[in-house]
Amino acid sequence: MAQHAIALDSVFHALSDPTRRAVLSRLGAGPASISDLAAPFDMALPSFMKHIRHLEQTGWISTRKAGRVRTCTLETGQFDLVEGWLEEQRQVWEGRTDRLEQFVTGRTSNAHKNTAHINRKADS
Amino acid sequence: MAQHAIALDSVFHALSDPTRRAVLSRLGAGPASISDLAAPFDMALPSFMKHIRHLEQTGWISTRKAGRVRTCTLETGQFDLVEGWLEEQRQVWEGRTDRLEQFVTGRTSNAHKNTAHINRKADS
Repeated sequence: MAQHAIALDSVFHALSDPTRRAVLSRLGAGPASISDLAAPFDMALPSFMKHIRHLEQTGWISTRKAGRVRTCTLETGQFDLVEGWLEEQRQVWEGRTDRLEQFVTGRTSNAHKNTAHINRKADS
Repeated sequence: MAQHAIALDSVFHALSDPTRRAVLSRLGAGPASISDLAAPFDMALPSFMKHIRHLEQTGWISTRKAGRVRTCTLETGQFDLVEGWLEEQRQVWEGRTDRLEQFVTGRTSNAHKNTAHINRKADS
């Protein structure tokens, strides 16, 4: 559980930067070399490489070097972590909405019972 | 677009901390006072309040003070931002998978044509 929490910390932290999100979006279309990935950014290569290393360390991408070219590939499993967390939150709200509905429905039928009881008393 | 990117930065950064995620999960079950929210954490109140302010500033929660009690409420709209971003990524992959399928299917039918062509040549 602690391991899972640490994984979520780093997975979400990686997404809190626009360069890193743009790199992930680009890699969604297929693997790419570091130089191709860096091309659209007005950023020195060492700064860009920090983002690449961050994404690699947090499990969002894997990299492989062939000759002089390092190619990056998206690790889509991290999206499952994010979606899993969102799904957990949704289940909590839905549980809440269900309980709220039961509460409201319960009150309504009790109100009916009370009204019926009062009506019976008034009739007797 | 730049505003949207800044919003996503702060929305994801808020999720990169286990205390903040736990607060959001608790608030999913319904509004709660700061003291109720702080109770499960072994943390000084000023440190806990920093997380509450972070969540408020990044739009994840709203707070309202009545007398001495400040009540926090989850703002579920931020989940839509996160889900919207995930959905965009998924569309990129699915587009890629479709193109890959077309490519493979195209190659396969071309290969069949070539084989048929060779067979016809062999027959003649």
